[in-house]
Amino acid sequence: MYVILVYDVGEKRVGKMLRLCRKYLNWIQNSVFEGEITEVKLHELKIKAGDIMHEEEDSLIIFKSRNEKWLDKEIIGKERSSVETFL
Amino acid sequence: MYVILVYDVGEKRVGKMLRLCRKYLNWIQNSVFEGEITEVKLHELKIKAGDIMHEEEDSLIIFKSRNEKWLDKEIIGKERSSVETFL
Repeated sequence: MYVILVYDVGEKRVGKMLRLCRKYLNWIQNSVFEGEITEVKLHELKIKAGDIMHEEEDSLIIFKSRNEKWLDKEIIGKERSSVETFL
Repeated sequence: MYVILVYDVGEKRVGKMLRLCRKYLNWIQNSVFEGEITEVKLHELKIKAGDIMHEEEDSLIIFKSRNEKWLDKEIIGKERSSVETFL
């Protein structure tokens, strides 16, 4: 399964979420990830993300597609956040 | 065409980008939008976004799908940023 994952979490939790998501998916922008993942791994990721997130403030959106070829991706501007340099 | 749009722009340009994108798409999270849009309207949006963005710092990712039903969306936590309240 191909997924696009976007999170919006409080500043204090950004680093943790980033490290978690990078274990499972490819990082493409500040808080945006994509990649192939199994149902089992995605479930694991959601459980772990739930432990980090504060439900009343944070959010996580996952778009799932059975096949990546159904989606066309276009990137305008800089391809990845420079956050990487100080993590 | 159904699109998911995610931007990552400098703080000073967030408000402008948000207002621009809301004219074309549905706002679902801090910097995430989705919706049905024509090629012509999307082109218009990209031109206008390009005028706001600083290419060396900012980025915009657009995922396009011919059909929304190819994508499953799951939202965990809060559904929308509270930014709306002070815009």
